[in-house]
Parts: sequence; C-alpha cells; structure tokens
Amino acid sequence: MSIDNLIKNISGKNNPSVVGLDTHLSYIPSFIKEESFARFGKGLKAAGDTIFKFNKALIDGLHDIIPAVKPQSAYYELYGWEGVRALRRTISYARKCGLYVIVDVKRNDIGSTASAYAGAYLGSVDIDGTAAAPFNADSVTVNPYLGIDGIEPFIEKCNKFDRSIFVLVKTSNKSSGELQDVATEDGGVYMTAAKLVGEWGKLSMGKSGYSNVGAVVGATYPAQAEIIRKALPNTFFLVPGYGAQGGGADDVVPCFNPNGLGAIVNSSRGIMCAYQKNGASERDFVKAARDEAIRMRDEINKKIK
Amino acid sequence: MSIDNLIKNISGKNNPSVVGLDTHLSYIPSFIKEESFARFGKGLKAAGDTIFKFNKALIDGLHDIIPAVKPQSAYYELYGWEGVRALRRTISYARKCGLYVIVDVKRNDIGSTASAYAGAYLGSVDIDGTAAAPFNADSVTVNPYLGIDGIEPFIEKCNKFDRSIFVLVKTSNKSSGELQDVATEDGGVYMTAAKLVGEWGKLSMGKSGYSNVGAVVGATYPAQAEIIRKALPNTFFLVPGYGAQGGGADDVVPCFNPNGLGAIVNSSRGIMCAYQKNGASERDFVKAARDEAIRMRDEINKKIK
Repeated sequence: MSIDNLIKNISGKNNPSVVGLDTHLSYIPSFIKEESFARFGKGLKAAGDTIFKFNKALIDGLHDIIPAVKPQSAYYELYGWEGVRALRRTISYARKCGLYVIVDVKRNDIGSTASAYAGAYLGSVDIDGTAAAPFNADSVTVNPYLGIDGIEPFIEKCNKFDRSIFVLVKTSNKSSGELQDVATEDGGVYMTAAKLVGEWGKLSMGKSGYSNVGAVVGATYPAQAEIIRKALPNTFFLVPGYGAQGGGADDVVPCFNPNGLGAIVNSSRGIMCAYQKNGASERDFVKAARDEAIRMRDEINKKIK
Repeated sequence: MSIDNLIKNISGKNNPSVVGLDTHLSYIPSFIKEESFARFGKGLKAAGDTIFKFNKALIDGLHDIIPAVKPQSAYYELYGWEGVRALRRTISYARKCGLYVIVDVKRNDIGSTASAYAGAYLGSVDIDGTAAAPFNADSVTVNPYLGIDGIEPFIEKCNKFDRSIFVLVKTSNKSSGELQDVATEDGGVYMTAAKLVGEWGKLSMGKSGYSNVGAVVGATYPAQAEIIRKALPNTFFLVPGYGAQGGGADDVVPCFNPNGLGAIVNSSRGIMCAYQKNGASERDFVKAARDEAIRMRDEINKKIK
C-alpha cells in the first residue's frame, strides 16, 4: 500500500509509532522456544518457527492500536532461509491484520539488481508466465549510495503497485557522522542525500501531499532532523533510535511537521522485550508489549499535538 | 577463508577473475527449467531448484579454472525463501569445490543489526547452546554509509573466522557519481569512503600484506580507480562492471597494483549467458561459459602482466 495508506492507519489509530520486529531468539520467552525445539530440534527450522509464533502473538495483541510493523531483515537472515521464511510469514500475517509492513532491508545496488530487489519486496516475479509475490511488503528501506539507478526500480514499483520506500538520510547510530556529516556544498553528505530524496520524491507523490519516497532520519540527531524536516516538507520520515538507542520523546519532535504529521517513530527492543524489563512473567509478554506501546503512543502524541 | 586464501586461489589458477552468479530465471536454459517445473509446478520452489541446478553445473564446469564465485543475493531473494535456500546450497557447493565465495549482499545497518548480518553470512548463530552457520560464506560486500558501527561486527568475524569483506567505494553504475562524486575535502565522497576503508583495513591485516577489508571499485570509472588504487595500496579490490556493464580489459588495469596483483574482476551475465550470445545450443551452456571465462582470464592477464 502507498504512503497515503500508512498515513490513514496512523490517523485512524491516533498513533504515529511503528513496532520494530527485530526478532532475535534471545528476545523470545522460553516457553515459546521450548515448543519449537521439542518439535523440530535445536536448529534453524526451530528458530524460524519460534520467531513467527512470537511475532504472531505480538501482532494479535497489538494490531488494534498500532498502524504498522517494521521487521528488520537481519534478524531473519540470521536464521538462514528458515528465518527468511519466518519473515515472509510475518509480512503476510501482519498485512492480513491490517498493519502496514515496512521491511527494513536497506538494499542498494546497480539498476538491474535493484530491479530484482524491488520485484522481490514490493512487486512480483514472473516464473515462466506464472506470477508470484516473493515477499509482498508495503514498503522497504533503501540506501542512497548508488544514486537514482538503485532507487528508480523501487519507485517504479511504488507507482505500479501502490507501495512506498524510505531512503537512508541520517541514521541513528553513533558513527553515522563518519560519512554522513562530512562537509559538502549542501551542508553535509546527509543533506546531499536529503536533496536527492527530495528530487526522487517528486517521481511518486501521494494524494496526501507526501511522497511515496520517504526518508530515514534518526531520533538521536534532533538538530540535524530539524534541518532535514525544513528541507523536505513533503517527505514522510521513518524515525529509528527511540528508546533502546537513546532517543527520547523530545528528540523525535523535530521529525514531525508543525501540524503533528509527517513521521512515524520506531521502537523495537523497547516493546518486544518490555516483559524482560518490567519484571513481568514471560507468559505476559504480550500485555507488557501492549502497555509499552500505549505508553509510547501517548508520550509522543503529547509532545507533537 | 581470509583474503590470503582468495589471493592463493588467484595465484594458483593464474586467474584474477570471479564469476558472478546473478542467476535470473531468464538466464537458465529451458531444459533445466522444464525439469523443475515438471517436478514442483511453476512457482518459487521450482525457481529455487532450477537456480541451484544451473549454478551447480556452472561450478562443476568452471571450478578448476576460476578462483571464486560471487552470488548476487538479489537474484535469490527475488524467488523468496526458496531462492534464499538456493543461495545457501550454492555457497556450500562452491566452497566444497574449493571456490572462494563472495556473497554480494551490500548489507549495512546499526551495530547490533550489523552483528546479526555478520553472524548470518560470515559466522554462526547460537540456538540455545547449539551453533548453526546460516550462510557460511567466505566474504560479503557491505555499504559504508553508516560508518564503522556497521562495519566493525563484520571485521570481528573476519578476525575470528578468517573471512573478508568488500566495502563499496566507487560503484560501477551510471548514477554512482550522484552521491559518490560530490566534492569533499578528501576529493569526493568516494575518496572519503576510501580513506575510511584504509583505516578500517588496519583492523584486519592478512599475511599477504592485503587487508581482509577490501573495496568495491567499478571497472567503468578507470580514472577514479587509479586515484583509489594509489590511496589504498594494501586494499584488495573487487571490480564489477566488466563486460555487460561496459568496462573493458583496459579499464580494469588501474585497479591492479603495478605487480599485477590486488584485484579480482567480476563478470556475471557475460559468462552465465555466453551460450545465448555465441549461438551455442543451450545444452552447451557450460562449455560456452568456460570458453568465455578462459577468454576473459587471458585477456585480463595479458593486460596486467
């Protein structure tokens, strides 16, 4: 679905946050793991099985209050193709529950290869006349390092199948400045990237006034976020870095437009692992996640409205 | 295996080229596809099966003359988890045949997530006390946009398990300059990236004098390659862009050090699809690939020696 649908989900649920499904085995209650180990033995198949069960339980318990989920591909690839299968099952199930699914893959490549990635995640592939949708997500993250060649095939899918992408501009990690803050005529590499994202965005505008080409802007750099926000009023921001990474509710404010729209804030470990922090029984992991998701929603809404 | 092992393979076979396994279905002879369709129906499972069979035939027919293969992950992800399974099978088989396997994934993420990617591709994962190796490649490509946080977990695996990585510096595609050529104090974003790669490389030096942290430098930009080569004498280059993308044998020369070492040149479609170009019967696809691999080897050796 397009960026307009993400915005509708956010408005409908009055919640500008997305739950990151960075489902590492160590985040999963042992009673869920034990079931899978008993059935499949201790291996990648059991890992894939247990990850999907955990995700499904979270989706069941949260889908009425959250607009979107963001599975982080690395945590599925970590369990091989069985893990990637769990990613596929998670995407399908979350979409069935009405959630907007942003798969965090940060892909980037030359044009022909980017076409393959775009087909894999946002489109379909032709198998000798039969169409198949390998992953069928609503949105993916992409890296701008290769320029438009690596982005254009994704934009094509945005336009053809109503999807969206989020291009890395300023990432949330500690060393993001090593390359991204290096001085350029535009005010730094991240501002050069922002300028490109603004141009690319014009190739796929939604009816909401926001482009299907969004930007990733970390909550951990509020000063830079403010500058990027001003430069890109029609770009929707995906904001990582809140919670476990150190960004607070005040830090995400500059990512929003003055009307309180234009961004969605991610929390992964903060929600998935809430039960490990508040001393809940691991059987109550869904309730702990839901409580934290509500707390986060209310905290952010209070700041931006 | 470390960069030293790649160099040994190159010397042993007197061949500084790598065969890219960008195995799109349309590259595969129909008699191979028909077998898989008959067995599994037309779908992702058949696609995965047919891709592995094609790769296996190429590896069987080429492994005595080539040092390495480079599967491009996008073409496996394009067929969903069944495709990713074909990637896993391809990596195992190629390594069993003594080939160095560079998986072209261009991954990049924050530290904790980069650790998951590094574990997936170059290391192992712990499943409740049982270790599993999800992909177990020799080497992967990575993107430098996030700085050392996104690279360091890979370097850790290089040191712990004798592996290597290749960091994007100057890519081969047409629009690579949009971001990479933007002026910086170092002489452009790609030179800033090169400088970082030089620093990171010191964290994992091989006995050969080359670092396990290599660089991706496109054959399509020989002038920039010359500058990068001079700046990074101890960095091994992975060179895409030869053949189908337009780079010729003269263009790859600046990627090598004066002694004719220090780089490996990739050709994907040129070799995989050789049978489609020279009018061979599709049953002779391995012979056509072998002829082209030999032609390429000899052409490059003639220029660099």
